[in-house]
Amino acid sequence: MFDLVAFDADDTLWHNEDFYWNARRRFRDMMAKYELNGSADEHADYLEVANIEYYGYGVMSFILSLIEAAIDLTEGAVKTEDIEALMEMGKEMLTAQVQVFEGAEETVARVAETHPLMLITKGDLLHQQNKVSDSGLRSYFQHVQVVSHKTPQTYARILERLDVEPGRFLMVGNSMRSDILPVLEVGGWTVHVPSDRTWGHEVAELPAEAGERFFEVEHLEQVPDLLQELSNSHR
Amino acid sequence: MFDLVAFDADDTLWHNEDFYWNARRRFRDMMAKYELNGSADEHADYLEVANIEYYGYGVMSFILSLIEAAIDLTEGAVKTEDIEALMEMGKEMLTAQVQVFEGAEETVARVAETHPLMLITKGDLLHQQNKVSDSGLRSYFQHVQVVSHKTPQTYARILERLDVEPGRFLMVGNSMRSDILPVLEVGGWTVHVPSDRTWGHEVAELPAEAGERFFEVEHLEQVPDLLQELSNSHR
Repeated sequence: MFDLVAFDADDTLWHNEDFYWNARRRFRDMMAKYELNGSADEHADYLEVANIEYYGYGVMSFILSLIEAAIDLTEGAVKTEDIEALMEMGKEMLTAQVQVFEGAEETVARVAETHPLMLITKGDLLHQQNKVSDSGLRSYFQHVQVVSHKTPQTYARILERLDVEPGRFLMVGNSMRSDILPVLEVGGWTVHVPSDRTWGHEVAELPAEAGERFFEVEHLEQVPDLLQELSNSHR
Repeated sequence: MFDLVAFDADDTLWHNEDFYWNARRRFRDMMAKYELNGSADEHADYLEVANIEYYGYGVMSFILSLIEAAIDLTEGAVKTEDIEALMEMGKEMLTAQVQVFEGAEETVARVAETHPLMLITKGDLLHQQNKVSDSGLRSYFQHVQVVSHKTPQTYARILERLDVEPGRFLMVGNSMRSDILPVLEVGGWTVHVPSDRTWGHEVAELPAEAGERFFEVEHLEQVPDLLQELSNSHR
């Protein structure tokens, strides 16, 4: 019943937020030796979101925001060796081995047997492309698209370009804000797979009228059976 | 005779290198008040290219490289207010009004009358998309693609996806390295439009065997007539 099934990548198919989580912890430890004019966590979080307007999503945006936060929080007293360490941390994040979730390859392989697959991911263009290549999952996907934002317009444009009816499109992802709500808004189907760690910015409330096009499963591995059931019930 | 004509964007349709040029000048001025352990220009250039591996192309990559260069060159003595100023400069670059070249819109409009057009540009995903929107030229292009690199594989994949024969594809751009050589390598046609300012990294030698699929014009406005001539001569 679907002409296209799309998966989100970060925190849906492989670990991502863990790297940010660790980086935020390292940032907090780094800031602990200074006298701060605010909460390290709060100011970093604030700038991370405020700077999306300029930098978009991804590691470079994150690191530039941490540098800015470090200077702000210490009123300029942060040592340049700590700024260097933040940039080094960014390079580590950008070159870290992709850690595909257990069962992700089997899931994707099973869905690929019956549906054309697409990967839709947002962030640094080069980094996202590198992660897709390194994941070993590239060959299961007919289409891979790195986008700057995941808005209803983003999905509408992708579906128009590929000539897919929204009612025959299903998106699988961990982020309510990016993978679920905008897809429901354009008339698509969605499967929410909550991840252990989701960035606060990506959390959103499901509207009461989400209705029959919204599903939630506990584990990614449940997606193929859910699709099978859906196909059977709509036959 | 062409099924697809593609234009590069930065320094082909609108000013770009000027912004980097000014930023490098400001960096040099900023560094002039410090005791440096090397040439500001040379070390910034070196890091800008060395960091492409991590950051790809674009303003964020550039600014992170300048911060790294400032710390290196001053052996850590750079003031955090100068690092702040570099980040501020980056935000200015990312939000600067797009300055479309004189005659660019007329050129694109004329070519669009007879050919499907594509825009192929590399750099920060969000920034490039914003520039395309702001340029007022979006509607002339059937396809817009932001890529992380412009290699022969990049072009081969685009042509494959759009089902265009390389021999029926023509690329217009200012960069020998990114717009001309890789397209010639996959069997496409090229028009080089040198710009007043081209980043050193984008300069490359034209191989002797470039042959009949390579053209060079002095001004972008000459492209429509050249295409017309080519179509007439190959009829």
